[in-house]
Amino acid sequence: MREVYLDNSATTKVSNKAKTKAIEMMENFYGNPSSQHEKGFEAQKEVEKAKEIIAKEIGSDPNEIYFTSGGTEANNLAIFGAVKAMKRKGNKIVTSAIEHSSIFEACRYLEERGLQVVYLKPDITGCISKEQLLEAIDENTILVTMMMVNNEVGSILPVEEVKRCIEIKRSPAIFHVDAVQAFGKIPVKVSKLKADLITASAHKVHAPKGCGFLYKSKNVRILPIIYGGEQQEKIRPGTESSPLISAFGAAVSEFDIEGNYEKVSTLRDYLLDQLSQIKEITLNSPENAIPYVANFSIGKIKAETMLNFLSSKGVYVSGGSACAKGKKSRVLKNLGFDDERVTSSIRVSFSKYNTKQDVDELVKYLKEGLSTLARSN
Amino acid sequence: MREVYLDNSATTKVSNKAKTKAIEMMENFYGNPSSQHEKGFEAQKEVEKAKEIIAKEIGSDPNEIYFTSGGTEANNLAIFGAVKAMKRKGNKIVTSAIEHSSIFEACRYLEERGLQVVYLKPDITGCISKEQLLEAIDENTILVTMMMVNNEVGSILPVEEVKRCIEIKRSPAIFHVDAVQAFGKIPVKVSKLKADLITASAHKVHAPKGCGFLYKSKNVRILPIIYGGEQQEKIRPGTESSPLISAFGAAVSEFDIEGNYEKVSTLRDYLLDQLSQIKEITLNSPENAIPYVANFSIGKIKAETMLNFLSSKGVYVSGGSACAKGKKSRVLKNLGFDDERVTSSIRVSFSKYNTKQDVDELVKYLKEGLSTLARSN
Repeated sequence: MREVYLDNSATTKVSNKAKTKAIEMMENFYGNPSSQHEKGFEAQKEVEKAKEIIAKEIGSDPNEIYFTSGGTEANNLAIFGAVKAMKRKGNKIVTSAIEHSSIFEACRYLEERGLQVVYLKPDITGCISKEQLLEAIDENTILVTMMMVNNEVGSILPVEEVKRCIEIKRSPAIFHVDAVQAFGKIPVKVSKLKADLITASAHKVHAPKGCGFLYKSKNVRILPIIYGGEQQEKIRPGTESSPLISAFGAAVSEFDIEGNYEKVSTLRDYLLDQLSQIKEITLNSPENAIPYVANFSIGKIKAETMLNFLSSKGVYVSGGSACAKGKKSRVLKNLGFDDERVTSSIRVSFSKYNTKQDVDELVKYLKEGLSTLARSN
Repeated sequence: MREVYLDNSATTKVSNKAKTKAIEMMENFYGNPSSQHEKGFEAQKEVEKAKEIIAKEIGSDPNEIYFTSGGTEANNLAIFGAVKAMKRKGNKIVTSAIEHSSIFEACRYLEERGLQVVYLKPDITGCISKEQLLEAIDENTILVTMMMVNNEVGSILPVEEVKRCIEIKRSPAIFHVDAVQAFGKIPVKVSKLKADLITASAHKVHAPKGCGFLYKSKNVRILPIIYGGEQQEKIRPGTESSPLISAFGAAVSEFDIEGNYEKVSTLRDYLLDQLSQIKEITLNSPENAIPYVANFSIGKIKAETMLNFLSSKGVYVSGGSACAKGKKSRVLKNLGFDDERVTSSIRVSFSKYNTKQDVDELVKYLKEGLSTLARSN
């Protein structure tokens, strides 16, 4: 059975280059990057190389890159690290109502412990207005955290407006951007975002699972959430996962943002054209969504039922965030969709490896599913 | 130049079986273990298999194994997770003065925030008496955390005494064992240790860096330190690093604790015999040390100088914990050694891959170094 993998916002296949680099690290450069001998130094050099590749990609200094075990840890380090460092300056966090659970749950934890958290509600397109930002951010705000691209519908949030709003309101707030779903897909540049902290994840960009980074501007101070040895200036101690870090660097060195954007746009447009001819289907992704994500609802049939059907045909898509393990989407609810639309929503997410044939097979089985499952409903 | 790698307490070479498993995961089972389709289920199955292998090794239930990014994170999760869950029951932690920095620094952080921490001082052999334990542990103690094997000198701590002492003193304390340097070298069994929490690290047992586990007895409750999705019962959310977890499982399935213990004992005894004939050398590892570690001091020559010399000959040993990045050893100081002995200390640490020829080359270059460096001193 031919496999059609269209769940690339959940995770991606490791590229050959990233895999080869991980193997090289395991075979040859297996020293502990902190060891004070040649075997350690050569591993450390490889970690530094990966830092340089990533720093170049986002336009930062290599010393501003801190490796973590993934996007979830990097987001937690950003939030708790900033709040711990800023606790004397205020007690308010501003975020959006459609963040990933690693932001939402961390904010909830702090809210339960007395911090004020404002969850800005975007309109149906994911748009949060400048007025909303200006109203929420104040002198008491110590952190603004916002995702750049939403993981479920692909909408682009107005992150480039945030820093200006912080300045206008003379707020001391640290500004964090969760760029997990943007990195590698659209340009993520420190100079444009004017963010103090930026998070990204390796396994969303064709590197292995278990690695991520936090960019931390040298102008801001955060405190660690994990304590230990002297690694990474004690901001994130623990032996660096040199195989995963180097594989991450290798994957980033393969970025072709413009080329892939064009390729994936063609696939997405082709898909939307096909879907527009199926009467049960309503599109959930807004106009401004990145082409890598197409979210739509399938009417009376539950997403889970359709997912099982497609999976049995070797077609892999999702019903929302993988991290939710099938739980009902908070994001779609907060975007104002009704219950039927939420429970029947399907997310198709592309990578550079997808082809027109993948879309054809998806549409074929989607139609087959709609007719088969409707009958058995 | 032939490489002689004798720094296996810092990190180990990835075994072929572990590497092959990581590659298989990257190539074929690249789904997100939380995804609700076949590509996700097959990845999840592999994660479960690794859990079962590890659970069998320590004699626990597979559902009591939680994967982390390594020993440092697992130790932090144990300490902060237990303290957060137990904060209404008391405010005292009992630990030893020779713990790894991931325990020591976490305890220090809590101490600065008002918790009482007792750092039990072992004698020169690493021994902490039952009397010391009984004196320290009380009804106000919420956590006892102790390493099973010391990472710098290899001494075995009296972890098997701890649970009984907690019971005698009717203490509510959760008992955590940091088994990072014991796991795979001597039996680490839940039934013998009677621990509530046990930590181990993958890269110390021939699996790649970036993975560890925390065993948590189903009878105790801890709180997370990282917040996010539904993974691992929310005790440790974030997409599981399925390639590293499966490689860890593969490495554990290769354990031959008895066979390797015997092999490494022979090497260690052979080394100690050679070292006893060198007048500048004083042994630091106690009689009861595991055979995998031999720590000794070389007199007037600084360890760093000797390390550089040996490294230039392709012989890799260390001056203490790699995590300390060459900083002066707190452990040796707390074992009562004088300054010269601390700054000239060398740690040789074996793995199953080492040979008699490795020891011969080490001793040859050690002698050469002692005479060359003494002259140039």
